[in-house]
Amino acid sequence: MNEYMKKALDLACQNLETKVGGPFGACIVKDGKIIAASSNHVILDHDPTAHAEILAIREAGRVLQTHDLSGCELYTTCYPCPMCLSAIIWSNIRTVYYGNTKEDASKIGFRDDFIYSYFQSLPCSELIHFHQVSHEDTIKSFQEYEKDQEKITY
Amino acid sequence: MNEYMKKALDLACQNLETKVGGPFGACIVKDGKIIAASSNHVILDHDPTAHAEILAIREAGRVLQTHDLSGCELYTTCYPCPMCLSAIIWSNIRTVYYGNTKEDASKIGFRDDFIYSYFQSLPCSELIHFHQVSHEDTIKSFQEYEKDQEKITY
Repeated sequence: MNEYMKKALDLACQNLETKVGGPFGACIVKDGKIIAASSNHVILDHDPTAHAEILAIREAGRVLQTHDLSGCELYTTCYPCPMCLSAIIWSNIRTVYYGNTKEDASKIGFRDDFIYSYFQSLPCSELIHFHQVSHEDTIKSFQEYEKDQEKITY
Repeated sequence: MNEYMKKALDLACQNLETKVGGPFGACIVKDGKIIAASSNHVILDHDPTAHAEILAIREAGRVLQTHDLSGCELYTTCYPCPMCLSAIIWSNIRTVYYGNTKEDASKIGFRDDFIYSYFQSLPCSELIHFHQVSHEDTIKSFQEYEKDQEKITY
């Protein structure tokens, strides 16, 4: 195991003792150096978004002072859930090393695999009740945004 | 437009001036009361995960002191991206009111629709390069977790 996965796994194993969240760890590497690392903090932080990968991405953004993590690599002890995988895409990370699979996560009670199935079954799934409202008002905010010549895209 | 969507849209429109992030706003309602609200902060916070819905979910968790937002409803000025939709599922929010569509977001330069397509094309897409490593080590952390009788699942 290389030093990057070892860092991620050490963090995951710490959670088995501290119980601040599920048994997951992640780190982000740029130019061979770990620039951010975290375990899962869902329980301690009362934050359903506080997966290890999300927290590592947020830290990497602070360290590099940009939302664009192009050129970074992510090491995670478990294949990222759809939330984290989407965050990886938004952050422009292109390479992910993982240990456990989403099926492994499912076996110990996490819904990663279930949420992947949900995305495959869209738009028919009834899991979330969606209601479109006020489109005639909300679309104006997009029309204004479109006119801005100096906007930063991401 | 009801007061909840108005709150979300006011926040989205503020971003057109402040440019702290894209033109998106969200709020979370419990028992008829807004308990959390945010606009997108990706640019200001250097945080690719700082979508309006994610920030509102994080705030609601802090307010309610739990990662479980069952019974809450989300209002968002735009249909949530896959990251935010996954966060909604993790948080146990079941009802979402939205204004703009993901196709509207695509038209003004955001990748929401692209990421939805990516999930539909899995596992074949080459967008992210995945490498499984060290499974024989990482699986031990899951085996230990499974033995814990007092774990909190989420």
